[in-house]
Amino acid sequence: MSATIAPPADAHASGPARETVRVALGERSYDILIGRGVSAEAGARAAALGARAVALVTDDTVADLHGEGVRARLEEAGLRCETITVPAGEGSKGYATLARVCDAILASRIERGDLVLALGGGVVGDLAGFAAAIVRRGVRFVQVPTTLLAQVDSSVGGKTGINSAHGKNLVGAFHQPSLVLADTALLDTLPARELRAGYAEVVKYGLIDDAAFFAWCEANGPAVLAGGPERERAVAHSCRSKAAIVARDEREEGDRALLNLGHTFGHALERLARYDPAILVHGEAVAAGLALAFRFSAYLGLCAPADAERVARHLAASGLPTTFGAFAGLAPDPERLLDAMAQDKKVVAGQLTFILARGIGASFVAKGVDVAAVRTFLARECAGEAPAPV
Amino acid sequence: MSATIAPPADAHASGPARETVRVALGERSYDILIGRGVSAEAGARAAALGARAVALVTDDTVADLHGEGVRARLEEAGLRCETITVPAGEGSKGYATLARVCDAILASRIERGDLVLALGGGVVGDLAGFAAAIVRRGVRFVQVPTTLLAQVDSSVGGKTGINSAHGKNLVGAFHQPSLVLADTALLDTLPARELRAGYAEVVKYGLIDDAAFFAWCEANGPAVLAGGPERERAVAHSCRSKAAIVARDEREEGDRALLNLGHTFGHALERLARYDPAILVHGEAVAAGLALAFRFSAYLGLCAPADAERVARHLAASGLPTTFGAFAGLAPDPERLLDAMAQDKKVVAGQLTFILARGIGASFVAKGVDVAAVRTFLARECAGEAPAPV
Repeated sequence: MSATIAPPADAHASGPARETVRVALGERSYDILIGRGVSAEAGARAAALGARAVALVTDDTVADLHGEGVRARLEEAGLRCETITVPAGEGSKGYATLARVCDAILASRIERGDLVLALGGGVVGDLAGFAAAIVRRGVRFVQVPTTLLAQVDSSVGGKTGINSAHGKNLVGAFHQPSLVLADTALLDTLPARELRAGYAEVVKYGLIDDAAFFAWCEANGPAVLAGGPERERAVAHSCRSKAAIVARDEREEGDRALLNLGHTFGHALERLARYDPAILVHGEAVAAGLALAFRFSAYLGLCAPADAERVARHLAASGLPTTFGAFAGLAPDPERLLDAMAQDKKVVAGQLTFILARGIGASFVAKGVDVAAVRTFLARECAGEAPAPV
Repeated sequence: MSATIAPPADAHASGPARETVRVALGERSYDILIGRGVSAEAGARAAALGARAVALVTDDTVADLHGEGVRARLEEAGLRCETITVPAGEGSKGYATLARVCDAILASRIERGDLVLALGGGVVGDLAGFAAAIVRRGVRFVQVPTTLLAQVDSSVGGKTGINSAHGKNLVGAFHQPSLVLADTALLDTLPARELRAGYAEVVKYGLIDDAAFFAWCEANGPAVLAGGPERERAVAHSCRSKAAIVARDEREEGDRALLNLGHTFGHALERLARYDPAILVHGEAVAAGLALAFRFSAYLGLCAPADAERVARHLAASGLPTTFGAFAGLAPDPERLLDAMAQDKKVVAGQLTFILARGIGASFVAKGVDVAAVRTFLARECAGEAPAPV
């Protein structure tokens, strides 16, 4: 069916026109299309998937920028389209909005062969994907991520969900999309702060298991942020990295936990900030979390302090925070951070699990990490002291 | 591990002491234990599954009757137990109670190896099972059904969910339990009306594909309702029937739809009654739905009118409703019934799907049923006329 789909208007522009990354998950396999303009194919692709109607879930910010365009592409392809708009921001990732979105999808008479399309950042993708997972016990969905963070992370891999008062993403489902359209042209309207925040997740893939990609980031980070063809390369490489890890471990019973590098510290920061974007956004928390994970690894004698310094240096050069003290309006406190970590979902049988590193590109899952060491490390970080290795 | 589990106290009573039905679903396979007293094994069985803590979800009626007993069995086995009680009744199968149960499970610090235990009827099982499906993207759960309906139907097969304003069970997940303990002694406290309602689902298995079992029901129905050893036999046979169908088609892409025999009419009746138990309960709606499905099959010339009459006769002899007119306080109306059916989740591409029958034990999935025929049939049934075959 792809023969009937026109190439994007700017397929001949300089740089890599487009790439397709396959997420290999047996009967749940799907493609991620990456390139400038690929969202113009939303209608043709949805029709090719056999849908007759689409519930387009978006937020009020993205609706203004891209909502009508995507809707027009869907209607041109002969699909009935109902738009469901939620308020922008993390506050929409909760029970009340989930109920509203599910009811709106049902009201739009989406049937089993039809599609939910998530047009937005991580909040919209996680929320709409979860709604798609549970409406009629599962309808298919397509991700059209509009932030760098969503393009390289949350739209790939099938984790969907909402937040609870007890923590982030604690209620959800594994529900793989049928297709991801990562249109890098949509990032042109993204605020610089959001772009930088998403870049933290790009850097993460180098830090997990790909030292050469981290070195590439050090050389090309400015071009990725500025919007050259390096941006498409960074998105495609990140998607390939994530797809490979997800294909090995779809339901996070092993290696997939590596994707949480920087997230144990990061989620704790987000909880302390009460998810207030005036204080931090997710990618900023992850940036600090990555720097902290490497300093904690160095503190435990696992990794060379020079590696931790190199990680922090590149993140800082990219305009990202690397310490607890970097967040105005946050009063980091070791006990509150520890408590926030203990409620994180990576707690197994009461022990703390971290993703630590033996060096750049050499991360590993560390179970049963000693709480006393964490407490001492947090106290020194909160006090702004450079913690000496134990 | 079963060697350490004591047999039920009355294992040597007359009749089949206990039966185990295996639901064969690959890595999601599980056992249904059926017999008087099997719920006394809840603690030992949960411990054998590797749990350290159990979130026991129940309703306020069942909590008073059986809550402390099950809790004591769990604690005797060394498990930490947190009881979560919801109001009895269909009203608990909604977004608000789901959110409360999810948060309560999280507050009880249930971890991935732990268990949610559903102690109650279909509402509790569907609600707690759905909460287990989505808390931390899935924790294991055990069903201890306390109604005949839940023992023979809703606790088996992994369908979980809640109702939406748009219809029953429209939001949910497939999430198989790790174990079902169908303790027929728990039915001793069940009101006679609930017992009869559950019996409609027992009869359904004969009508689907097992004419001999329907004949057995005609002979033994009174004994099943009175509580002889025939009751265990009926529960075990029903569970075997359902397990076989679910094993063939876990996610209802084919044969599993046969389990909806009687449910298209039944769900429409429930919607018209606004799920008000003063008017009807689920099994009563199913009883009428079964009689209607056979009369509709006869009306369409698919099945002998004598078969439809025989079905209605046995249901009526069991104290169950068989017509729209049987429900005091309900004003059945063809258009409202049709509208209620059209929102049912078995609508595919705008056409009505029914489960119809060519005779007792010879049901089949009928797609694309003509709406005009449905309308005429409903009009005659609502007017109390015996519809002549077309």
